[in-house]
Parts: sequence; C-alpha cells; structure tokens
Amino acid sequence: MNNFVFYNPTRLIFGKNTIPRIGEEIKKTGLKKVLFIAGGGSIRKNGVYEQTADSLRKAGIEWVETWGVQPNPVLSKVREMTDLAKKEKVEAVLAVGGGSVIDSGKSVAAGMFLDDPWQAYQSKQEVSEALPLFAVLTISATGTEMDPFAVLTNEKDKKKWNISGPALYPRVSIVDPSVQATLPWCQTANGAIDALSHIMEFYFMGGSAETVLSLDEALFRSIVSMTDKLKADPSDYEARANLAWAATMALNGTSGAGQSGGDWASHGIEHAVSALNPDVAHGAGLGVIFPAWISYCRDTDPELFRRWALNIWGADSVEAGVRAYKQKISDWGNPVRLSSLGVDEYQFQAIADHVLKHGMTGSKKVLSRGDLINILKLSL
Amino acid sequence: MNNFVFYNPTRLIFGKNTIPRIGEEIKKTGLKKVLFIAGGGSIRKNGVYEQTADSLRKAGIEWVETWGVQPNPVLSKVREMTDLAKKEKVEAVLAVGGGSVIDSGKSVAAGMFLDDPWQAYQSKQEVSEALPLFAVLTISATGTEMDPFAVLTNEKDKKKWNISGPALYPRVSIVDPSVQATLPWCQTANGAIDALSHIMEFYFMGGSAETVLSLDEALFRSIVSMTDKLKADPSDYEARANLAWAATMALNGTSGAGQSGGDWASHGIEHAVSALNPDVAHGAGLGVIFPAWISYCRDTDPELFRRWALNIWGADSVEAGVRAYKQKISDWGNPVRLSSLGVDEYQFQAIADHVLKHGMTGSKKVLSRGDLINILKLSL
Repeated sequence: MNNFVFYNPTRLIFGKNTIPRIGEEIKKTGLKKVLFIAGGGSIRKNGVYEQTADSLRKAGIEWVETWGVQPNPVLSKVREMTDLAKKEKVEAVLAVGGGSVIDSGKSVAAGMFLDDPWQAYQSKQEVSEALPLFAVLTISATGTEMDPFAVLTNEKDKKKWNISGPALYPRVSIVDPSVQATLPWCQTANGAIDALSHIMEFYFMGGSAETVLSLDEALFRSIVSMTDKLKADPSDYEARANLAWAATMALNGTSGAGQSGGDWASHGIEHAVSALNPDVAHGAGLGVIFPAWISYCRDTDPELFRRWALNIWGADSVEAGVRAYKQKISDWGNPVRLSSLGVDEYQFQAIADHVLKHGMTGSKKVLSRGDLINILKLSL
Repeated sequence: MNNFVFYNPTRLIFGKNTIPRIGEEIKKTGLKKVLFIAGGGSIRKNGVYEQTADSLRKAGIEWVETWGVQPNPVLSKVREMTDLAKKEKVEAVLAVGGGSVIDSGKSVAAGMFLDDPWQAYQSKQEVSEALPLFAVLTISATGTEMDPFAVLTNEKDKKKWNISGPALYPRVSIVDPSVQATLPWCQTANGAIDALSHIMEFYFMGGSAETVLSLDEALFRSIVSMTDKLKADPSDYEARANLAWAATMALNGTSGAGQSGGDWASHGIEHAVSALNPDVAHGAGLGVIFPAWISYCRDTDPELFRRWALNIWGADSVEAGVRAYKQKISDWGNPVRLSSLGVDEYQFQAIADHVLKHGMTGSKKVLSRGDLINILKLSL
C-alpha cells in the first residue's frame, strides 16, 4: 500500500430539502456578498433557484448573479464572470448547478488572485489562493462538490486543461438528490459513466491496497445498479441518493487512497476529444475511451484487469468484462464508438498532441503518441 | 437514504516513515509549544518516541512531556495532565500512542477551556472549543485519529462516558502502520474487533443506503482477512496497512453516512462493563457483547441481519453468521463469553444502571433494562 495523505475539508450537506440551509452556512463564515454563478436556466424550472435565493435573502447575504455557463465551460465566460466578481468586490463564490458551473466557480475563485484566470491553468503549481467557494449541486457526476479539481476549456487555443489545489475544496456543498429527478436521462447516464471512470482511474493503479480496491468495487457496482434503477424510474429517490453519494465518493479521496494519484490517461484523451469537439459530453466521451484503454492496457497487470471483469461483471475474461461494460453503456442509450460522437481518424494526431502537451499520458502505463493513436483506433 | 452531513477536516498522513513529518506539520500552523502525551513507554521501544522528538526538535517545536496514560484512560490522569498544560501554557496537544492516549489528549484539549475536564462529559452539548490536537497513532482500533469522539473513565464514580464535537477532530494525524508490527497480538485482535464493531453500529441501522451498506461490507471483510493475515505474520506490512486504513474509515464518517448516527447500544454496554471492570479491554468486551446484541435484535430487521450473515460469512442464517463471527473471535484468541472476562450476573443490574444513566441504549432498538439484562445473559 502506497503512502498517501487524506485531506478533505469540505462540509457536505446531503439529502432532501437541504438547499434552504445554504444561506445560514454562508452567514456562519461571516461572508456577506457572493457571486452567484448559474448555467442555462434549468435551476429556474426545478425550484433550485428559488430555494437558494430565498435562503440567501433570509440569511441577509447579498448576491450578484451571472448566468450562462455551458457544458464544457469556456475561458471567455470565466473571464467575464471574474471581471464582474472583481468589479462587485464579492467575498465568495456560490456556484449553483452541475460540474461545469461549479468548476467555473472554482476558476473564478482562483482567478480573483490573478491577472487572468487562465494563468492558474498554465502554471504547474497547485492553487493555494482562491475566494471561498460554496456550491449547490444539481447533477451528480464530476465529484467537484467535494474535490480540489477544476477543468476549463480555452476555446480559442482549443485546450481543455485542469487545475488542482487545496484552495479549491468547496467550503460547503449541498447535495439534494431529489432535485435531480427531472434531469434528462442522458445527463444521468453521462454522470454515472463519469463517476465510474473516476473510480477506474484509481482502481487500475492496482497494487496492494486491498481495502481500497474492494471498496472501489462496491462503489462501482452500486453506481451501475442505481443507474439501472433510475433508467426504469427517474423519480426513484433512493436510487438517486445512492448514486449521488457514490459519485461524490468516487472523487473525494475515498476511492483513491494509496493509489498514487491515479492514472488519468483516459481523462486526458477525453479532454482532448471534447476540446476539439465541444459538443461531446465528458461522460459520453469517457464511455467510449475507457473501454478501449482497458483493452489496450490489460497486459500491464493481467490479474487486476481479470479481477475487475470478474468482480464487477461476473465475466471470466477481460474481453468479456469490457463487452459487458460496453453493453451496459449501450443499454443506457450512450454511444460506444468514437465515430458516433462525430470524431474521425483525421483528428487523431491533434488529440494526441493535446494529451502530450498537457501531460495527462497516464501512470499505470505512460502512453506514447503511438499508444494514444492505437487506443483511439480501438475506440473508433 | 437518510439525510446526513459529512465533515471531517483532519489531515491524515498515512504510510511508512511518515512520523518525521509531525514537527513540520505543527510548525505550519504557527504553534510553538505542545503538551506531549504518551502511555506506558512502548513508544520508547518501537522508535516512535525518538522519531517524534527528533522531528519536533528539527522544527523548533518546544514540548512538555507527560507519561503514563493507561488503557481505559482515567479522569485523575487527565486532570493531572490538564493542570500541567495550563501551568505550562502550551498552545496545542500532541498525543503519541493508541486510542487511550489520543482520547486523553482530546479530553485535555477540551479541558483547557473548563474548570474541570469532566464538565465536558457531564454536559450534553457538543464540544466546540479545544486546543488544537495533533496525533501519532501506534494502534489501529478506535478511529480516534480521524474522528470527533473521546471516551474517559471517571474511576471514582465508575462512569465510562464519551464526548463529541467538531473541536475534537485532530488537526493532523500520522498513521505509520509499520510501527504496529511489534504490537502484542491481543492488541491487534482487540483493535480489529473494535473497528468491526464500529462498522456494525452503523450497518445494522439498515435502511436504504445501499452504497453505504455495500461499502461497509467491503470494509468488514477486509478487516477480517487482514487480521487473519496478521495472525499468521504480524510483520506483514501490507496487511497491517490495509487493516489500519479500514479501521480509520470505520469511524471517519465513511462507514456511517446516512445511517442516522448509528446504534451504539453495544458500545454503551461495553463501556459499562469496562467501567466496572477496568481490566477489560474495549475490543475484548465488544467481541463478547456484539454477537449477543445481534442474536437478541435480529428480529427488528430480519432481512438485514440475514444479509450480514450471508455477505460477510457466507452463512445461510443469522445464527450461523453469529456462530461464524464468534468462531473468528475465538480463533483470534479472544474470549466469547462475559464470564471469561471475569464478569458475573451479580453485576448485571449495575451494568444496566450505567447504560441507562448515560443513555446509550441504542437506536435500532431502544433497549429497556429487561433487554439489557437479556443481552448480558446471552453473552454470559
């Protein structure tokens, strides 16, 4: 078992009717004025906006609203929001939405201490300074509600990069799974695939952390079975809640203790794919790339990959496990081929360039340009 | 799935050769003078004292030493240490040892703000004020290295009570599993039984948190198999590390999310037993009482108790599961009867008095005096 540090100071408030607590939570910290970041407007339809605004009002928290964060959030929008935050002299950021909104909130929070938010992404340093961040989560997927990471696309340079650092842990995050009942199905499926992929980035590091590996398997199986239940009934609160908590744990440190920080090559490839094809949802991209990565890398640790196939899918070979995973993704209505995402082989070199430039080439197996092209071919 | 709050701000530094980091970790916080609390002297033999003292010296941290914390730590000792801490005007507490030492450290840290440390235990309030606490763990068992709880025995009044509160989370805890290689076997076995009991206090609340239940099963099985490995080879680092991390997770919030705070009647009974019989080790007491509690309470939720028997022990009935658990405890060299701990039925009323007075009568099933006597009879 490799050495590790577990540190996660986020206070996560989880469950039904918890959103009205956000105002008091901000008030307790003594902060009085926040930048309220939101997406395209779904929070107006599911009641989250009203619950949040009411709560802020009751707690006497002043806020400035900024709307319009898109999936695969972009730098130009983060710049605009950071300028507003500076102009309005807000003391904290409140992000209300899914992973893209909360990640944008983190980029703004860090950007407040820089001439330009992209500097945080260009630096190889951990982010040590940021405004306090509060979050109300509306889609369980990325784990950003309880992790120190953010991803941002520089749309001009076609770069989708990520940052991390202790300053990026939300102070308080609220997860009310009941508000996810009205999500479009594809967002539930993409979120589940994203969470499964986070677990696999750690799990496939293998090693001797048996406690962590078996816990990861439990989380993985739980996510699969809860997503199946939600496909049958999107309003099933218990399935929604179990999926939400598993997705948080998939990236809050629990799934990755002793796993040397994880592999992250599949994420590196997906970031490249969606940097070049902004309409590709992150979860959808991962659902195509990760099975190909497994097939390509299985010889690095045959016993571990067979264990995954057996313990997750009851399959007697890695190939059968990969087939079962792809079948599940397909049953959930998601694509299993890169070509279905509108990506063709003419992009392969540019995708490889992106991965190599940002350096997310993996750790279990460090991928060369040739390896990257081979994985892309396998996933085509 | 019930609502919950997950909050655990402890920075846990885990792995081989991590003890030399303690000085720098304290220094980072700006604190300069600590009360160094230790037990009977084993840390002088296993090198932990020297590693800690060297690290403090290098970081320029001044310290005052106080030795002699015993298993089932007592109020008189905590009073003595608190007086010393006040006289020496220390800014923090550094506890170096097992659960009794760290719990004593928490009692001192809270006691600094009170006329007498026992006031914290008499109050039904959460502890909100305490000196910063740092810990170096030498026995994996209680989970105190990453939880907000402490237990103390008022030996004059024969009360073994507990406190909790956010101020009791250690700021930093260091867990180097390699220093546990020289533990007497009984301490490893008692620690494992304690950790298993923590999981069961949450697990048997049942409910719909499938993600948590299956994760608890993974942790439980891992603790059993790692303890078996250590019985064969106490120097097996991988088994030691996996057991240590599972024992931390058994009470750091992970095992209990959505489980309404747990049941804790078995702990209540054990605290009464060891308050009246101070030579009974906590883990040994739990190994006797918990199986009886399971047998007695199984009808409250037959499906859940059968699930435990099947998923943990591969047993087709609750009785068979309890038999398998008792056999395991016995294989580990631990007693499975209260009478083997020197407790007889003449103490039953006094034990019930203690449980009822402190109010740890359970939550899955609230135990009456009659229930308590019946469970004690079953465990005799």
